[in-house]
Amino acid sequence: MFSPELQVQLSSIEANLKYFRSISNEETEVGVVVKCDAYGLGLKKIVKFFTTQNIKTYFTATLEEAIKVRKIDKSAKVYTLNGFYFQRAQKYHKYNIFPVINSLLEVKKFLEADLGPSSVALQINSGMNRLGVTRKILRENINLFKKIPLNLIISHLSSADEPNSESNIEQKREFLKCCEHFPKIRKSLAASHGALLNRDFHFDLIRVGIGAYGGIKGANLRPVLQIKSPIINTYRLKKGMGIGYNLTFKAKKAMKIATIPTGYGDGISRLLSNRGFLFFRNVKCPIVGRISMDLLTVDISDLKTEPTYLNFFSDQYDVSDMAKQTDTISHEIFVKLGSRYKRKYFIEQ
Amino acid sequence: MFSPELQVQLSSIEANLKYFRSISNEETEVGVVVKCDAYGLGLKKIVKFFTTQNIKTYFTATLEEAIKVRKIDKSAKVYTLNGFYFQRAQKYHKYNIFPVINSLLEVKKFLEADLGPSSVALQINSGMNRLGVTRKILRENINLFKKIPLNLIISHLSSADEPNSESNIEQKREFLKCCEHFPKIRKSLAASHGALLNRDFHFDLIRVGIGAYGGIKGANLRPVLQIKSPIINTYRLKKGMGIGYNLTFKAKKAMKIATIPTGYGDGISRLLSNRGFLFFRNVKCPIVGRISMDLLTVDISDLKTEPTYLNFFSDQYDVSDMAKQTDTISHEIFVKLGSRYKRKYFIEQ
Repeated sequence: MFSPELQVQLSSIEANLKYFRSISNEETEVGVVVKCDAYGLGLKKIVKFFTTQNIKTYFTATLEEAIKVRKIDKSAKVYTLNGFYFQRAQKYHKYNIFPVINSLLEVKKFLEADLGPSSVALQINSGMNRLGVTRKILRENINLFKKIPLNLIISHLSSADEPNSESNIEQKREFLKCCEHFPKIRKSLAASHGALLNRDFHFDLIRVGIGAYGGIKGANLRPVLQIKSPIINTYRLKKGMGIGYNLTFKAKKAMKIATIPTGYGDGISRLLSNRGFLFFRNVKCPIVGRISMDLLTVDISDLKTEPTYLNFFSDQYDVSDMAKQTDTISHEIFVKLGSRYKRKYFIEQ
Repeated sequence: MFSPELQVQLSSIEANLKYFRSISNEETEVGVVVKCDAYGLGLKKIVKFFTTQNIKTYFTATLEEAIKVRKIDKSAKVYTLNGFYFQRAQKYHKYNIFPVINSLLEVKKFLEADLGPSSVALQINSGMNRLGVTRKILRENINLFKKIPLNLIISHLSSADEPNSESNIEQKREFLKCCEHFPKIRKSLAASHGALLNRDFHFDLIRVGIGAYGGIKGANLRPVLQIKSPIINTYRLKKGMGIGYNLTFKAKKAMKIATIPTGYGDGISRLLSNRGFLFFRNVKCPIVGRISMDLLTVDISDLKTEPTYLNFFSDQYDVSDMAKQTDTISHEIFVKLGSRYKRKYFIEQ
């Protein structure tokens, strides 16, 4: 091994999908979210894998991402969450992609574009106030909304990761009131965290993203990602010597240091400087000194042998733990991974 | 405009290169660092531009990056800072790329590989303890080191952004002692911040990266990057209403909100939630609520008209300011930009 590797355990994605299916009613479809290069794991390989997993519905943020999905899966439903790019209306038709209509303006533009039999989804703003149509706008323009060829109504929970939040209940109520205008249309309210709340939030379709990719720590969900990076240099650091930019770490005793060709340019947050860890098997190797763009240095004094590589995650430390250490959520760790890793995909036999 | 745009002002890169040339002796070459996709700005276009700017020497982190440079510039010197990947030795020969030898092991592996007339650089560990050969190792193995076909000796300052740091002087002294073994070989110690210290640090070659790309705020250096993103939705938020994930922002009065299709998946740090700004001309529009993966929301109540797009930077707020707000350096902002932007390159007439 001479380059950092991003290893994706497809069998764990499969197990996570199975778990989401196991907690859903039989009539509820499990769709997947593959925006942002499938959360940094590599859209092409991940979508290709999903085609073997009976996945029939994809959600992306942008039209470009949706076209990439369509090129791999010719028959699935593909929705663009970030709305209808009316300046490129013909592309939706050409690639059979369903925009998620997010505003009254987008309804009008969609009708103007006259895309024939193309379908769309409608996003309801049930309380997150980010995208979607409010109940008031919907009511005031209901004749216009009735004209669009809807095949799905969606909304998004702001606080699904807080099971006791009142707003989950309030958003569901608001969503259902809006859906009353379209009694025959399929409904989707829950992404991964929403799906984990309970079946009352599932309706016809759940949109699983982070939960499939191992970004939620939970008894029933498996980690998917490992980063392995070779050791390209080792040092003996004498007591009192500093290391890295601005010499923020000073050795309190003689230490052995390993240099790894992976840095914040590979999505390893600079906030992990002097705080994060790498692992050899399950032995912790603390990051010492500032993380550089392409390199970082770890204390390997506790290792009995000098390994050829180190891991970024262990049984005790996964993406969620790294996220906590850097004051963010696992989603941000995933999408920052960048393009320099060699990506490898595994299926357990 | 319907997609977020990353705008690169090539004329500003040109002006920044000119500035580095103006503060250097005539004999000092200005080389450039283009690792990590040219700091996120797009390696291909940036290297192509550098070929018009009399740039003759490039530094990358990895062999893959170096090969990309070689495919654009057939004659320049291209060095890989992260060392000699001896498992792929023939590639250096094939593409005429110079590895930077960082350890005794790499010297041995290079000699074993027997790459004929290929040249290399040697990195000295002058005190940063990250990569490079210490004076002791060099002295103990000088006959071996004398066998490698050196064309450059480099080292790297840990604290060049602290002009009064003693370690700048100490590292220079250590570097020069090591260079005494190779009196005829060209020397390079300074990257952008080192070049800004003074000419005593320049030697034969300075390696300009962040300073060329507008990541250093200074009287004589120009910003290079602008991010423009369309407004895809606007809302009236009533007093008391929340916005975004976990409703972390609650409106204290009626407000007007704009939603922008750019989020932490595009490198806009989630730490800017409820703290960052976007701009319309020079009017500040505060980010309200949590930044999502693909979206963020800003308060546009202060704008007299409803614009079609907003900017991420203004005359008063550049990449360095955004870095300060997120407890990092401008380098990390650049390399996180991601691949979803439409990249546009401008040359002032």
